[in-house]
Amino acid sequence: MNAVPVPVPQAFETDMHRQPGHLIRRAQQVHTWLWTTDVSKEVTSTQFAVLTAIAASPYIDQNSLSRQVSLDTSTIGDVVNRLLERGYVVRSRDPDDRRRNLLTLTEEGARLHAVILVAATRMTERLVESLSEQDRHDLVRILSTLVEAGEALRDTAEGGGRR
Amino acid sequence: MNAVPVPVPQAFETDMHRQPGHLIRRAQQVHTWLWTTDVSKEVTSTQFAVLTAIAASPYIDQNSLSRQVSLDTSTIGDVVNRLLERGYVVRSRDPDDRRRNLLTLTEEGARLHAVILVAATRMTERLVESLSEQDRHDLVRILSTLVEAGEALRDTAEGGGRR
Repeated sequence: MNAVPVPVPQAFETDMHRQPGHLIRRAQQVHTWLWTTDVSKEVTSTQFAVLTAIAASPYIDQNSLSRQVSLDTSTIGDVVNRLLERGYVVRSRDPDDRRRNLLTLTEEGARLHAVILVAATRMTERLVESLSEQDRHDLVRILSTLVEAGEALRDTAEGGGRR
Repeated sequence: MNAVPVPVPQAFETDMHRQPGHLIRRAQQVHTWLWTTDVSKEVTSTQFAVLTAIAASPYIDQNSLSRQVSLDTSTIGDVVNRLLERGYVVRSRDPDDRRRNLLTLTEEGARLHAVILVAATRMTERLVESLSEQDRHDLVRILSTLVEAGEALRDTAEGGGRR
């Protein structure tokens, strides 16, 4: 295999740093680092999102939960199983539909959720501390538009239903 | 373990969807889905970022490359090894410093890079198609500020050097 130097104009390289996809990956890396450093090494931000959704809707079923936190069904299954094993969540049968399982926090899960919520709120403050009030507001607004449109695109492509 | 329903005010749940961290994770999921669907199942966006940085700076050393694409040294090592194995990149010894390895694209790597660049540009267009011109511009500006401040925070925390 020959090494062929392929010089590319400088503008090109700079350009990569202005690609939304590249910036989103770096933002996700920063967020993961801050989460591990400031919030928890044991509970991931995804597990916390699931705990939050269950706290907000006790006896939620797993499909609704999957939509609520925007995780595909196989990922949500793994996350829920982990939380069940650790005793943070319990599963019960829906009395109205015996095929449906409903999820609720245990006392320990509710306690963990409350503790992490405090740390996560502080961490978020640190994540956006370089931004003005207006920019924080705009970031949330713009990312919401992007993810809602993107998730709708994905759901349509995958046959009309959610993954 | 007792199931303890812990009702949380409705505002709380809505709030999760307005958390920058949560939105960044969903944006990253959308980006990964679009990349796999529209660009490549074989080459990841991270591998493409590395190919792009090497294309822009032939004979770049691995530390500079790690900084250029914002990947920690162990991750960049894995990505580079994968690209070396597949014959997209070659490594040569720096004649001025025999401990340094320099990286260059092979002919096949340059060809792959050019092909993916076209598809990635189209994919980016789709990623942001729901946004106005102004919002696209603001997203890049705000995320750049956030990741630069966050990466600086991480580098300081990890002892002044880059990971």
